Amino acid sequence: MTFSHLDEQGRARMVDVTDKPATGRRALAAGSVRMRGDTLRAIRERRLDKGDVFTVAKLAGVMAAKRCAELIPLCHPLGLDSVDLNFTLAEEPETDCGRVEITADCRVTGRTGVEMEALLAVSVAALTVYDMCKSQDRWMVIEAVRLLEKEGGRSGTLRRGEQGGEA
Amino acid sequence: MTFSHLDEQGRARMVDVTDKPATGRRALAAGSVRMRGDTLRAIRERRLDKGDVFTVAKLAGVMAAKRCAELIPLCHPLGLDSVDLNFTLAEEPETDCGRVEITADCRVTGRTGVEMEALLAVSVAALTVYDMCKSQDRWMVIEAVRLLEKEGGRSGTLRRGEQGGEA
Amino acid sequence: MTFSHLDEQGRARMVDVTDKPATGRRALAAGSVRMRGDTLRAIRERRLDKGDVFTVAKLAGVMAAKRCAELIPLCHPLGLDSVDLNFTLAEEPETDCGRVEITADCRVTGRTGVEMEALLAVSVAALTVYDMCKSQDRWMVIEAVRLLEKEGGRSGTLRRGEQGGEA
Amino acid sequence: MTFSHLDEQGRARMVDVTDKPATGRRALAAGSVRMRGDTLRAIRERRLDKGDVFTVAKLAGVMAAKRCAELIPLCHPLGLDSVDLNFTLAEEPETDCGRVEITADCRVTGRTGVEMEALLAVSVAALTVYDMCKSQDRWMVIEAVRLLEKEGGRSGTLRRGEQGGEA
Amino acid sequence: MTFSHLDEQGRARMVDVTDKPATGRRALAAGSVRMRGDTLRAIRERRLDKGDVFTVAKLAGVMAAKRCAELIPLCHPLGLDSVDLNFTLAEEPETDCGRVEITADCRVTGRTGVEMEALLAVSVAALTVYDMCKSQDRWMVIEAVRLLEKEGGRSGTLRRGEQGGEA
Amino acid sequence: MTFSHLDEQGRARMVDVTDKPATGRRALAAGSVRMRGDTLRAIRERRLDKGDVFTVAKLAGVMAAKRCAELIPLCHPLGLDSVDLNFTLAEEPETDCGRVEITADCRVTGRTGVEMEALLAVSVAALTVYDMCKSQDRWMVIEAVRLLEKEGGRSGTLRRGEQGGEA
Repeated sequence: MTFSHLDEQGRARMVDVTDKPATGRRALAAGSVRMRGDTLRAIRERRLDKGDVFTVAKLAGVMAAKRCAELIPLCHPLGLDSVDLNFTLAEEPETDCGRVEITADCRVTGRTGVEMEALLAVSVAALTVYDMCKSQDRWMVIEAVRLLEKEGGRSGTLRRGEQGGEA
Repeated sequence: MTFSHLDEQGRARMVDVTDKPATGRRALAAGSVRMRGDTLRAIRERRLDKGDVFTVAKLAGVMAAKRCAELIPLCHPLGLDSVDLNFTLAEEPETDCGRVEITADCRVTGRTGVEMEALLAVSVAALTVYDMCKSQDRWMVIEAVRLLEKEGGRSGTLRRGEQGGEA
Repeated sequence: MTFSHLDEQGRARMVDVTDKPATGRRALAAGSVRMRGDTLRAIRERRLDKGDVFTVAKLAGVMAAKRCAELIPLCHPLGLDSVDLNFTLAEEPETDCGRVEITADCRVTGRTGVEMEALLAVSVAALTVYDMCKSQDRWMVIEAVRLLEKEGGRSGTLRRGEQGGEA
Repeated sequence: MTFSHLDEQGRARMVDVTDKPATGRRALAAGSVRMRGDTLRAIRERRLDKGDVFTVAKLAGVMAAKRCAELIPLCHPLGLDSVDLNFTLAEEPETDCGRVEITADCRVTGRTGVEMEALLAVSVAALTVYDMCKSQDRWMVIEAVRLLEKEGGRSGTLRRGEQGGEA
Repeated sequence: MTFSHLDEQGRARMVDVTDKPATGRRALAAGSVRMRGDTLRAIRERRLDKGDVFTVAKLAGVMAAKRCAELIPLCHPLGLDSVDLNFTLAEEPETDCGRVEITADCRVTGRTGVEMEALLAVSVAALTVYDMCKSQDRWMVIEAVRLLEKEGGRSGTLRRGEQGGEA
Repeated sequence: MTFSHLDEQGRARMVDVTDKPATGRRALAAGSVRMRGDTLRAIRERRLDKGDVFTVAKLAGVMAAKRCAELIPLCHPLGLDSVDLNFTLAEEPETDCGRVEITADCRVTGRTGVEMEALLAVSVAALTVYDMCKSQDRWMVIEAVRLLEKEGGRSGTLRRGEQGGEA
């Protein structure tokens, strides 16, 4: 069991990455915003999914990823090579609910992974969808923000569900 | 149906709050980080819940709330009067899983509500818990980030589950 | 002749606004991005003016306005009530050139004016249009960034061209 | 015709620079602040051009260049090696006007160019000159913010006016 | 004995200022940068004290004060009405040393005091003097950063040395 | 005598590091917060030194170091590999005073040194200790913020007190 962000006394610390090589790394994260069915239909009918709601959310996600080290206290500053987000609408007819599903894909050439950047991009994009639609539906829920894949670094490529160990 | 952040053409806009009075407002949000049972037990046994993990996450949440208007593109800048976060550990013996449950309570005297500040505080605190523990368990999931209560402004006091309308 | 940002020795200083009342203030600024005619036509034909180019530029302008006091060294921090930007395409057939014309309208209840916020919003929006289109036309020029109107505060309402004194 | 910041659907995206080599790059940009002749003469007579006005504007430009990726949504974060700004005063006797002419020279070793950093440095420096002098002359105009030269990267060295294609 | 930033369990918290009135407040802080006598003389002879060293340090102090709530984790965001810094050179002939003495005076109309803003302004100004001169003298020391006066709020006006209780 | 941050006219400039190699660099800085003996004893008795006071201060120092180039105007942006802070309590029985002694150790692979990052980390950590304890003792003093060691770059390893030249 290892908590590399804590020293022997349980005190928080930044991991020293001086001796790690700068290599290509990638992380893919996902999450969703769950909403009432009528909110989903309003988005569809007004074609908001083709318009500004997802563009604003995408930009918010990209810009947040670039500032990850300012927000997550022990993250290393990284010069991201690429951040991409995608948004899809999904209906759940049996519960009369809908979801905006969000993924974020981050790449860097660096000494640490970009999981936090990808997870932050998803979270801020989801919060921005909430903000854009909250006058219509303030009880929306952000769900299942999680890492899907991770490439590069010592552990190589890892995919959610392939090694077990998920909660 | 209203999307106050979109104009008639569906283009994003910041809401003009010039004519709203500056009044006391409050928002309470919640969310959780779901993890394997052995991760929860490691946190308990090493007493990390009494130590730096939650302190670091709390600070990250407070500091993010103060910068909400920088991250959520159409949010108004607000001078927060108070931000408070709480963390509790919950076990799910039937699934051998655990959760860190997080709440954030924000207060302001201003022209707009503080829902986004409270939801961002929860999200960044949850991401920080993930960051602090990810060397131990990288498949943790951030779940159920949502508004619980809202006070002040035109709509008065609203509590999740009391009016219906939840997804 | 007065340079209120300089003391008697010519040294820079922040103006002390302690004794000014907090009142409603507004500023309207404008500017444009001048480009080749074929760039303008490409934007029109691909309908980029209805799509993400102007949305991204608008958001960049809004977000920059909110952070004006971080960028302009002697500006006072302000809690903006509203920021709005508009974009229009204009053709200059005689020179086979085109322009994106940008306006920014900022409002606040505060002790100082919002001219700098409006001018910064226009500038950053114009730079973002440049950034979005520079792979197509790297010699575009940002032109005529200027204040159009100013309301509130001691000097009341002022409109460009009505009092004379323009360069 | 290429708009590398837009995908096939016209949606904004960050360019993926993972496969580009990190090489030496440079950009030179320019712009000016146009003002009434008496404002120019006041600056000359009070020797403000030798004093704090240009120093404050220079610092504002340097500091903005370092934060370019925070302001221009799809810019990559870059670790600038050098930012330099120069200011000169020019008189236009025939129109009784004057100009502060500003250049910014940015260098980096990286995967993308530094045009946006240089253009932002000029813009923020020009806005700061405006802010420092606006109590004297609020109708000043920021003009002709443009790229002059670009070195490094796939396109090699390019100078304004040598290839044609300017608007 | 009271530590208002800690709860009964010793955990950090932001103080809730919801019920405090917004009143005029002021803080005056001071500090110094101690250096070798030859460094002081070089500054004097090259007239750097009349030039950019102190201007750059002053701006850095003003800009840091405006961002105090981003840096000091439990500080409240404040809209500063005024920040002023002063710099003087002092010689210590008996030890062949010199000092740059710095003061910062901050004012606000708000619910909390501005001590942290004034102390941060002094600290960042002192660090900037160090940065500007470190190629000449890297062993300079920042000394005696302290609060001199505090006005407004429940405790009224307090001056260092008048009530006793200094360390 | 050299002031590399000033040009021949005494005007501030950023040093051009284009031609410097990116090598491993390290800086160690220190400083202290001096307080009354009863404040020190309150910290000891309430075991605040084992609790949140130092954790909050440590995080504030780490986060400030990551943002050094935003605060110190002519600093280069750096991607820090490691930042570590340590805190110890020291009693001065003869004067009935106490001190929190702080060190910060920063590492980077880059073109410039990390002295400013280490000194800023110490300063912001010290200010945070002040902020956390100021309701108990507002006359605390931040003292002796200074560089202890510097490794890497052209000047190699330098330790305070070994070459002489300290003020």
